[in-house]
Amino acid sequence: MITIGILTKPAFPRIKPVLQALIAWLQEREKQVILSPHTATMLGSPLLHQEDHLASLTDLIVVLGGDGTILRAARLVEESSTPILGVNMGELGFLTETTVEHMYTSLDNVFDHAFHLDKRLRLFAQIVRQGLPVEEATALNDIVISKGPLARMIRVQIKVNSKFVTNLRGDGIIVSTPTGSTAYSLSAGGPILEPSLDTILITPISPHTLTHRPFIIPKQVSLETVLINQEGAMVTFDGQMGIEVQAGDTVTISASQHQTHLIRFPDRTYFDVLRNKLNWGDG
Amino acid sequence: MITIGILTKPAFPRIKPVLQALIAWLQEREKQVILSPHTATMLGSPLLHQEDHLASLTDLIVVLGGDGTILRAARLVEESSTPILGVNMGELGFLTETTVEHMYTSLDNVFDHAFHLDKRLRLFAQIVRQGLPVEEATALNDIVISKGPLARMIRVQIKVNSKFVTNLRGDGIIVSTPTGSTAYSLSAGGPILEPSLDTILITPISPHTLTHRPFIIPKQVSLETVLINQEGAMVTFDGQMGIEVQAGDTVTISASQHQTHLIRFPDRTYFDVLRNKLNWGDG
Amino acid sequence: MITIGILTKPAFPRIKPVLQALIAWLQEREKQVILSPHTATMLGSPLLHQEDHLASLTDLIVVLGGDGTILRAARLVEESSTPILGVNMGELGFLTETTVEHMYTSLDNVFDHAFHLDKRLRLFAQIVRQGLPVEEATALNDIVISKGPLARMIRVQIKVNSKFVTNLRGDGIIVSTPTGSTAYSLSAGGPILEPSLDTILITPISPHTLTHRPFIIPKQVSLETVLINQEGAMVTFDGQMGIEVQAGDTVTISASQHQTHLIRFPDRTYFDVLRNKLNWGDG
Amino acid sequence: MITIGILTKPAFPRIKPVLQALIAWLQEREKQVILSPHTATMLGSPLLHQEDHLASLTDLIVVLGGDGTILRAARLVEESSTPILGVNMGELGFLTETTVEHMYTSLDNVFDHAFHLDKRLRLFAQIVRQGLPVEEATALNDIVISKGPLARMIRVQIKVNSKFVTNLRGDGIIVSTPTGSTAYSLSAGGPILEPSLDTILITPISPHTLTHRPFIIPKQVSLETVLINQEGAMVTFDGQMGIEVQAGDTVTISASQHQTHLIRFPDRTYFDVLRNKLNWGDG
Repeated sequence: MITIGILTKPAFPRIKPVLQALIAWLQEREKQVILSPHTATMLGSPLLHQEDHLASLTDLIVVLGGDGTILRAARLVEESSTPILGVNMGELGFLTETTVEHMYTSLDNVFDHAFHLDKRLRLFAQIVRQGLPVEEATALNDIVISKGPLARMIRVQIKVNSKFVTNLRGDGIIVSTPTGSTAYSLSAGGPILEPSLDTILITPISPHTLTHRPFIIPKQVSLETVLINQEGAMVTFDGQMGIEVQAGDTVTISASQHQTHLIRFPDRTYFDVLRNKLNWGDG
Repeated sequence: MITIGILTKPAFPRIKPVLQALIAWLQEREKQVILSPHTATMLGSPLLHQEDHLASLTDLIVVLGGDGTILRAARLVEESSTPILGVNMGELGFLTETTVEHMYTSLDNVFDHAFHLDKRLRLFAQIVRQGLPVEEATALNDIVISKGPLARMIRVQIKVNSKFVTNLRGDGIIVSTPTGSTAYSLSAGGPILEPSLDTILITPISPHTLTHRPFIIPKQVSLETVLINQEGAMVTFDGQMGIEVQAGDTVTISASQHQTHLIRFPDRTYFDVLRNKLNWGDG
Repeated sequence: MITIGILTKPAFPRIKPVLQALIAWLQEREKQVILSPHTATMLGSPLLHQEDHLASLTDLIVVLGGDGTILRAARLVEESSTPILGVNMGELGFLTETTVEHMYTSLDNVFDHAFHLDKRLRLFAQIVRQGLPVEEATALNDIVISKGPLARMIRVQIKVNSKFVTNLRGDGIIVSTPTGSTAYSLSAGGPILEPSLDTILITPISPHTLTHRPFIIPKQVSLETVLINQEGAMVTFDGQMGIEVQAGDTVTISASQHQTHLIRFPDRTYFDVLRNKLNWGDG
Repeated sequence: MITIGILTKPAFPRIKPVLQALIAWLQEREKQVILSPHTATMLGSPLLHQEDHLASLTDLIVVLGGDGTILRAARLVEESSTPILGVNMGELGFLTETTVEHMYTSLDNVFDHAFHLDKRLRLFAQIVRQGLPVEEATALNDIVISKGPLARMIRVQIKVNSKFVTNLRGDGIIVSTPTGSTAYSLSAGGPILEPSLDTILITPISPHTLTHRPFIIPKQVSLETVLINQEGAMVTFDGQMGIEVQAGDTVTISASQHQTHLIRFPDRTYFDVLRNKLNWGDG
């Protein structure tokens, strides 16, 4: 690992001394450092690169921030599958693997190959309008179709592999990866999926039909939702980018051919994180 | 009962012959008929009155439509407490009491005083901005505070009788009457409240904290929500009118001093309606 | 307040020095002390009285233990409405009001009349078999009808004020007071009821019909459940006493004419307790 | 397919003429017919065989009954993977594929090879006491660990692949296949799993910790539950057979090496069945 990219939470000034120390530490170890534009601007640094080059030029992305910053990094490095090391600036997250306190030990472990790659399913969505593809994007957590701000409900037809499943009325629908099962979907009543699973989770949001429950399908299938009667509805990707959709639009969602590669160390399991984040205590 | 107001679902042309027959039938019985503007326009009728006079001039409001039309009627007649007879044009509703087929029998029963008044709690909300009241409105079903279209979540502080309860993060919060417990709140995971109860139901929508559960407080208390950090958030009343709110706004909700008076006949109970609407079958 | 009863968690030896000090402290203040049989036996004390006399002879019951011990005390003092001061030996409970550390300050406040009485609804159930009442008992938290150990489900007919509501199939049914809404009912998916409410909460346990949701009725009504086809089913009161019921038995539940009187101090609200017990954090 | 086994719901006399006609119809087509003991006794027929030979001797099992009878048949044919055709005597089930009305057409299709095999994951559990295996059994729907009849809760430690997950307190725990996700687990709040998935669903029943949500793990893992402090607890298999377990017992659950093979015809999808059983209507 020669070239290290760094991505930080935008406008998080408390990070500045941490970053400067990290860059110096990496340079001492003869690593080349590339910063995302936000990060470079904050430091007044010449290591600036376009965000969309970050992935193709680097062997490792270090993310300083929270789970939201990792979701953004994962989108940037999507096609190259560059591994991501998440360094949490605050409390432990589902995606961040280490903390500022343990950052240098963690990086030493990475450079010593004392880690494994946790490969996470991503979702890919294509929006088709009047027979033509108008947009496409991917997500690590979830793709959400939700009602417009003034509408009382959205109505979508759901198909799996072209087979009709149901018409759903409600606030919307969350299509989630196993990774995303502990994000928005959990708040909407969805189950927890062990993140190595190759499955897609569909969680209705406040469904009008009370027996519309979360359901889980294989990643090999293609999920198709047709927007029946709604203006102002949105499709959002990881809660970070939104595309407005129209009545008649089809949103087709399937597993992406790319995965997100997260650096993991053996000292804690997924269940340790879960127990901590969900306050499971000692039962 | 001398003067009868009629309110119909807007733009529902199939209703025209039903309405004409109803007006004739009422006039034969020497009733004075007053139509809402929409209804009058549809018929090209001279019985037109402003919607907001409908309540003060009439002894009974006949609503032809569904539960949504009754919610609208209930808002119009709020201060006068004029009784409402709901005549459903489609399937049985929670609020409509009779159908087009039984409309004349029902009216005969009303004129013979063979009915009782089902008095339903309404909610009253006042929105205060920088110390000044900017809006107020009431609802029969629910008052909903929800996130703006592009926001990932709303954050509100909840107080009961000025005592801090919790800070809620999520899609929003539904403050519901017992009547509204079978509407939006039920989809969001709320319980069913027998409609004669004098209580207020607070149902969080997709709360970030999983232990934020629906909770029920006495109607004597005042519920106060302070919007912490959200632009573009909305307060909606019965899903029919919306007011945009800003960070720092306080929405204070309590029981209205007015109730909605619904005409009821003894031949079916609330539980019969519930069993039918929720497909409880015979168990 | 002259005569003070003391009730402790059975077989909780760590309590012994605390108890001895408490008795001495009360006697110094010229209070008469009466112990429950368990407590007296543990101390080898002559202050022994039958548990069922504890209520009629005392002006205040001090309970050393947890919420479970208070539920037991509340059953003993039911008819006399003797106030209860709950002193928690471990972590904060919903019903205990003070801790061992603050016990003497709390008692001083009680003797100075610096408290208020929190009057809680109790439930009363009567079991009728072939037209004859066979058992009756009360509860502060809940009365639960549950399936026998080998049965796949229970089936009960539910009526409110003799009106048929539904036939419920599932693991059972929890009939709860507002106080009990944060106990078993919450685990089974029920809402939280502010404890001053005069309402009864019915929560189905794993209902076969998915639209059988928790529902709330006025305390003035009588809830009747008829056991349809189950041998080995149980009715339990506050999870502490159980009565076996048979097919055809009717369990009629209504508000008890007695309430449980809990001593409260003004320094924390019900919502403070809720926030602490449910890990609501600062949102 | 030469030899056809028939299994019926025990003590279901209305079935007799249907059965006699079916046997005659099969014999006309030169099939050899073998009956389960119950079925043979009911008919006074000499075609009797021990239930546990039914699988090894037959090429197809026709089940007349409901989903419960199929669960029983699936247990009998487990090791041989003999295909099962479910003929429903009442309303449509999740597992039955045809009805009495269409039974002969369905059988003609089977004999013409116009069907596909729907291979369903089974669970295998081993109960270990003081280091020694004491029982083992399998299930097509679910394996349930539940509290004893008088206990207030069960407490189990959950491990996945020997890694500690959590200690669960509550009424019990449902370990379910995708097939079983629409059975007991759904009533307890679990999600719906498309039945071809290779995953195991763990649904807590009325968990004391509110953030203990249903979770889904790969079938490759081994789930281990250690019973912490409960006498009288039960492990039940498909709700049909129960084994009493003791404090300290370990129940290890993993995917069985055998699957259940259900005969399916192309004219309806899994989603059609779901829509019908869950009253999804047309949305």
